[in-house]
Amino acid sequence: MAGSFADDSVGLVTPRTVHFDESLALDSGRVLPGYTLAYETYGELNADASNAVLVCHALSGNHHAAGYNAPDERKPGWWEACIGPGKPLDTNRFFVVCSNNLGGCHGSTGPTTHNPETGEPYGADFPLVTVRDWVRSQARLADHLGITRWAAVAGGSLGGMQALQWAIDLPERLAHAIVIAAAPRLSAQNIAFNEVARQAIRSDPDFQEGHYATTGDRPRTGLMLARMLGHITYLSEAAMGEKFGRDRRGKPNDYGFNYDVEFEVESYLRYQGQSFVDRFDANTYLLMTRALDYFDPAAACEGDLAEALRGVTAPCFVASFTSDWRFPPAASREIVRALLDTNKRVSYAEIRASHGHDAFLMPVPRYREVFTTYMQRVAAEVGV
Amino acid sequence: MAGSFADDSVGLVTPRTVHFDESLALDSGRVLPGYTLAYETYGELNADASNAVLVCHALSGNHHAAGYNAPDERKPGWWEACIGPGKPLDTNRFFVVCSNNLGGCHGSTGPTTHNPETGEPYGADFPLVTVRDWVRSQARLADHLGITRWAAVAGGSLGGMQALQWAIDLPERLAHAIVIAAAPRLSAQNIAFNEVARQAIRSDPDFQEGHYATTGDRPRTGLMLARMLGHITYLSEAAMGEKFGRDRRGKPNDYGFNYDVEFEVESYLRYQGQSFVDRFDANTYLLMTRALDYFDPAAACEGDLAEALRGVTAPCFVASFTSDWRFPPAASREIVRALLDTNKRVSYAEIRASHGHDAFLMPVPRYREVFTTYMQRVAAEVGV
Repeated sequence: MAGSFADDSVGLVTPRTVHFDESLALDSGRVLPGYTLAYETYGELNADASNAVLVCHALSGNHHAAGYNAPDERKPGWWEACIGPGKPLDTNRFFVVCSNNLGGCHGSTGPTTHNPETGEPYGADFPLVTVRDWVRSQARLADHLGITRWAAVAGGSLGGMQALQWAIDLPERLAHAIVIAAAPRLSAQNIAFNEVARQAIRSDPDFQEGHYATTGDRPRTGLMLARMLGHITYLSEAAMGEKFGRDRRGKPNDYGFNYDVEFEVESYLRYQGQSFVDRFDANTYLLMTRALDYFDPAAACEGDLAEALRGVTAPCFVASFTSDWRFPPAASREIVRALLDTNKRVSYAEIRASHGHDAFLMPVPRYREVFTTYMQRVAAEVGV
Repeated sequence: MAGSFADDSVGLVTPRTVHFDESLALDSGRVLPGYTLAYETYGELNADASNAVLVCHALSGNHHAAGYNAPDERKPGWWEACIGPGKPLDTNRFFVVCSNNLGGCHGSTGPTTHNPETGEPYGADFPLVTVRDWVRSQARLADHLGITRWAAVAGGSLGGMQALQWAIDLPERLAHAIVIAAAPRLSAQNIAFNEVARQAIRSDPDFQEGHYATTGDRPRTGLMLARMLGHITYLSEAAMGEKFGRDRRGKPNDYGFNYDVEFEVESYLRYQGQSFVDRFDANTYLLMTRALDYFDPAAACEGDLAEALRGVTAPCFVASFTSDWRFPPAASREIVRALLDTNKRVSYAEIRASHGHDAFLMPVPRYREVFTTYMQRVAAEVGV
């Protein structure tokens, strides 16, 4: 069966779930009476459980980070570019774990799952969670898998923020932090884009204060708009220009003088927006954007990021992409500078790439090269 | 009465309207059976009508470019920074004219005015208009005012595009073109933002295919979202950071763990979106964004902008702002290069300003200085 996949793919993967009965106290003050995490693993855990890498996903991701859940699945997991035999997160060496974040909509406890207190889907009653809450919830997954200390915790974008938070909150439980295309906090512009997305969802009449699950309708329009807007920020202007330019959709000469699709980029965005609605939950989208807004480890230290990172013991690999305007290189450099300010071990790569923020998901040769080199060092330390 | 306004303001201004009975053939192939333009004028037309300057407005602007329409009006016209005694468009020298674009919603014929064929508001039946259509419609206003040749046609953003189109289409009718913070065409990213704005409006249930005027409702939510999104693109990331940062709205310590306003920038955007809805029409917004998408004078010359500008005789003043990412300096430079390629007279100023695209509306000292200097030269030529 695996023969039908590329040699450097992990191939067919079966998602799993684990339920934790113990309640989880959240940053909001609310308490979850137990929770389930959906997760996937790739590669084999070695005898002393020292080769495990936790991969954390971004805003719209989930636990399906690599390979295929079915022989006929059209697209592989979201980080296929980086997870697999011979890839940066080399599954011949590492045991890679990725879980769907708490509050997600692909198998972990979240707005779409049932609230044990009511028997109904949580919907908008699901508590807002933070990056710190995710770290706490993922630590129990590590316990469950018998992993005392991750060889690395890795992620891009919001996933990179989780890797950084792991290094801050549970320094003894990870050997390395891999922080890619992330930022130490959102800028006003980042928050502004999130706010427009949230308003689009929350003002959709079908949102119904977030309790749409019981009505059969869903805020499809609002979620579509949020995703369309998100996509613009994931791509660089140059990448959009190269990919679409002002190309016309089968109408090379005259304009239609209407609001139908005239340009390829309109068609692309509509498709992206509409297809997203079929696989994502609006309450989860809201919750993820708020977790992004709230992430700001320096805030606890009066804005001093170096102070916030003082307890970090894991050497960090930080990477950014030149054309990323969502979390631009300057944001990554701020993390690097703060780490250096307190004499941490940090490697930093600013990778020339035209793809914008999405570059972290892509097979950019130089990215793959520096990421692979770093992980080879991690592997050597672990002895795999 | 004028004493209650600043000395460098044109003070109290009374808008006027003019109706043209003659039909107007549009680029779309449709024909308007006559139309009205609302306009304002500032300063005095000289005896040989040689000191007139046409100001063209941008996406959400109108004919109220300077001064106050009432003694208690809270804010002056949109280009108060540049129009008035001693300002770049010095009303002691020039007779400045600004009209509401055809298709607008502040007095000119457009979606909110009555279709003579039905007696109902045009709504979505109002034809899509182009920048070329606006030039044609404004030429009749020049005729009406007895202006054979403008001393200058000036504008920022979409207004700058109109100035450029004037120079292309009616070269004998303007002495100078003032093209500020504009672009020779929208990028894929620009079109993408427009498309999200349009989808927000058109998918609002109250839009009702654009015929909301007869129902009493209006697509307030969609228009609000469009405006919120627009605002993000008008400001630079740095300007947003300076203005709002991550400032909290009266909640310095703890997060609320909900979707109420947490950050100042959210409050700002909501206010901007909500107040816009009270003064703007959704069909006009759609139409203006489509005119922007369609603007591409080079397209008629197989993408050769220099060729498209070959017939231009007016010397051009082009200005851009370093932090403008909607129409960045590179877009203005492309106009300048194309003008130079065919040996046109062009002045170009790339102005360091942190405000983003909105800088063209602001009293940026260096901007005011170079704009004033250029207009003094125009005044000298005219002898005023």
